[in-house]
Amino acid sequence: MLSQDEFRQYGHAMIDWIADYLEKIEDFPVKSTMEPGALRQQLPQEAPFTGESMDVIFTDFKKYIPEGLTHWQHPGFMALFPSNSSFASVLGELLAAGVGINAMMWDTSPSATELEETVMEWLRKASGLPEGWKGVIQDTASASTLTAILTAREKCTQFNINAHGFAEHADLLVYCTAHTHYSIEKGAKAAGFGADHVIKIPTDNTYAMRADALEERIQADLQAGKKPCIVIATLGTTGTLAFDPLKDIATICNRYGIWLHVDAAYAGSAFILPEYQHYLDGITLADSYVFNAHKWMFTNFDCSCYFVKDNSALIHTFSANPAYLKRTHEAVTQYKDWGLPLGRRFRALKLWFVLRNYGISGLQQAIKTHIQYADIIKSFIQTHAHWKIFAPPALNVLCIRYVPAVSLTTEELNTLNSVILNTINQTGKFYLSGTTVDEQFIIRIVCGGTWLTEQHLHTLIHTLEDAAQSACAQLAISA
Amino acid sequence: MLSQDEFRQYGHAMIDWIADYLEKIEDFPVKSTMEPGALRQQLPQEAPFTGESMDVIFTDFKKYIPEGLTHWQHPGFMALFPSNSSFASVLGELLAAGVGINAMMWDTSPSATELEETVMEWLRKASGLPEGWKGVIQDTASASTLTAILTAREKCTQFNINAHGFAEHADLLVYCTAHTHYSIEKGAKAAGFGADHVIKIPTDNTYAMRADALEERIQADLQAGKKPCIVIATLGTTGTLAFDPLKDIATICNRYGIWLHVDAAYAGSAFILPEYQHYLDGITLADSYVFNAHKWMFTNFDCSCYFVKDNSALIHTFSANPAYLKRTHEAVTQYKDWGLPLGRRFRALKLWFVLRNYGISGLQQAIKTHIQYADIIKSFIQTHAHWKIFAPPALNVLCIRYVPAVSLTTEELNTLNSVILNTINQTGKFYLSGTTVDEQFIIRIVCGGTWLTEQHLHTLIHTLEDAAQSACAQLAISA
Repeated sequence: MLSQDEFRQYGHAMIDWIADYLEKIEDFPVKSTMEPGALRQQLPQEAPFTGESMDVIFTDFKKYIPEGLTHWQHPGFMALFPSNSSFASVLGELLAAGVGINAMMWDTSPSATELEETVMEWLRKASGLPEGWKGVIQDTASASTLTAILTAREKCTQFNINAHGFAEHADLLVYCTAHTHYSIEKGAKAAGFGADHVIKIPTDNTYAMRADALEERIQADLQAGKKPCIVIATLGTTGTLAFDPLKDIATICNRYGIWLHVDAAYAGSAFILPEYQHYLDGITLADSYVFNAHKWMFTNFDCSCYFVKDNSALIHTFSANPAYLKRTHEAVTQYKDWGLPLGRRFRALKLWFVLRNYGISGLQQAIKTHIQYADIIKSFIQTHAHWKIFAPPALNVLCIRYVPAVSLTTEELNTLNSVILNTINQTGKFYLSGTTVDEQFIIRIVCGGTWLTEQHLHTLIHTLEDAAQSACAQLAISA
Repeated sequence: MLSQDEFRQYGHAMIDWIADYLEKIEDFPVKSTMEPGALRQQLPQEAPFTGESMDVIFTDFKKYIPEGLTHWQHPGFMALFPSNSSFASVLGELLAAGVGINAMMWDTSPSATELEETVMEWLRKASGLPEGWKGVIQDTASASTLTAILTAREKCTQFNINAHGFAEHADLLVYCTAHTHYSIEKGAKAAGFGADHVIKIPTDNTYAMRADALEERIQADLQAGKKPCIVIATLGTTGTLAFDPLKDIATICNRYGIWLHVDAAYAGSAFILPEYQHYLDGITLADSYVFNAHKWMFTNFDCSCYFVKDNSALIHTFSANPAYLKRTHEAVTQYKDWGLPLGRRFRALKLWFVLRNYGISGLQQAIKTHIQYADIIKSFIQTHAHWKIFAPPALNVLCIRYVPAVSLTTEELNTLNSVILNTINQTGKFYLSGTTVDEQFIIRIVCGGTWLTEQHLHTLIHTLEDAAQSACAQLAISA
């Protein structure tokens, strides 16, 4: 096994490899071109019986792994949502792995718990969340939202489902829209509500929830003897970055005593800029909130920041104290009781490193720059004869489609845009992703990479032009 | 923000710091002696507005954090269950953080998905699990078990609860024992069963489930019109490392068509030694299995290995394909559909590093050595006049209590042993934990640390002696 000296030697070499990798990352195509099974076929069928040297292992790592990665830190990664990292964050993760502690309880590492409390309080203030709200780091927004759903489920049944199951609660309802992230329905299914108890409220022409439709539906459901349990309002949907009208929704939830969870998983990082905190109007009437620092706040995955107004229902929902987990102090935070998993990584450390190394002003500037980059693309699209903006652009996300002068059916337009997208991705310089909204296939551009520069945007503009020409030629459409 | 050169500089320094930390870890008391609030009070109330240099941040890290850690990698950490790490694992984690990819789907990094398939297959073979079972890495056993519960819930209702909720399924039952890990009941609550639908089957005098009592209860529940959904058999309970009789339980589950989940979260690492694979007799009749490589397989937290016989019910339970997550190939593994979270860390990398650097023989030797260390303590206890073994010792876990010659009530004995435990922990050389079984307070010793040596065991023996003497003196009990 690796000696301490070898650990130093290979540790240094791997730090340098990471620096080199990130420097030369544009030599790789953004999205892996590996064929299915290509890696598996090259690896042995069994673990080696005798240990191998780190020299051999590191050589194999370099030989096999990067080729099959989709390079999320490549500046041309503009697909899905980013998971942007930073040097400070990687160092925080390294030290967390090095000390190898478990942040399940206060006793199992007081400084991990107290650092988490501290950085979550820093983020609460910096993000314009109300005084008194408490935060906890979860792995993903899926987990954060499930935490909210379970807490709401228990609160609205006076903790009866935890105790006795759904026997008397078959009519609990969850409200969201068709544009809400799929993890909400997945969470509601896991929590036992059933997909047909997830009510998709109609949206307006910006794909945002219609508050009037929400209230009408709640009233109808109440009259039908059903029980509204939780509303999920999204600030920045995954498809088109639509913003549900939080204030109106919050007022309704407050009126009917319904838990309001706010999913700002992606867009929440922008609220560190005061000029975008207006999206949070009404948050004081909400109950819980999530944003992922691992998406757009330079903190490598995973780091989902979940906040609650009142942590008592949360803890009541998840707390349990078996005999083998003794506590030495009563008045300290036990994060194991703030969600589903018992074991917890020391994720506060990387967040502390990022918040201090960037400073709030550094994060503000970096995020503002990303939004300005999206504006560069937006100006190009707006002045272009055939590229069209689809859905209102917000922050650093743009949804676009190419609509040539000739008349095409929806299906033909979808095919054309799908071919354009593939053409762009095949350049290896950019990785964009598409989605389908109102049966129309659209191309999404997200300007959120840590190492993105203005030059990349100019290259992207040329690539968009070229890909559209090439796809039209391929499909024999006059561009 | 940190430049690339500074990343190299501080990266090297932090690698060296980790090596030094692990070398000098015995200078710290194992369990932190920090007072509640001590760290929080020293940190600023707000994030800095202007970014700070890594020099300042790293200095603060060294100043504030280690003092408040409970040192899980200290050889004297013998509490709870270990989370033993290794140099190879830390390096794997470093590279995973460095490349900063997300292993949610095959497309988002094919080599991450295929490496995970490969190492899980390596572990399946090495651990004596049946041919054809498929593996996935989850964060914790809590998540793995909840995954099993949800899959069983859906399978036994023909996926009706995911679709329609519990309306017609109020009588689903979960079976375990009072010694099963608390995350099973927590998971059953989250999944909507209700705590009163978690049936604790009586145990025998080794704290293992009585298979006859299980079958009796199942028959009674069936006659009462209830629906047995899942049985959780534990191989190595958290309190006393009891082993439920898998073969008998599996036969019963098979007879009644009930999902059988096997929780070997801790002990499963030992099954890499063929001489302990007899514990797995009957596993071919089970449906799912979990063990945590992050507990006793030198892979730093988190790395919970979940295996299923048939992945179709699993995928049916968790799969969803929103428009914004397009797939390029149908016949590849999409691990996002193998559990609750969408985002997934590249955890296969550290496991690959550990399995290759140790080799199967290296892991076998290391685990065998830990079991031999426990035998050293066991021999001491067995020949001692007043230290007594409580519950059958298994693998590297010993449960003990001190029973002096004078007659004491249960309460007095509990107090004495609690004082002994505190005395041991206050030395700072060891951190043991206690639990209460049958109203008796016992002290647990787990010999699972990566850097544990035989010398530590001899020191522990002296510490046990001294602490018993000192506690008796303190309580005026003749030792």
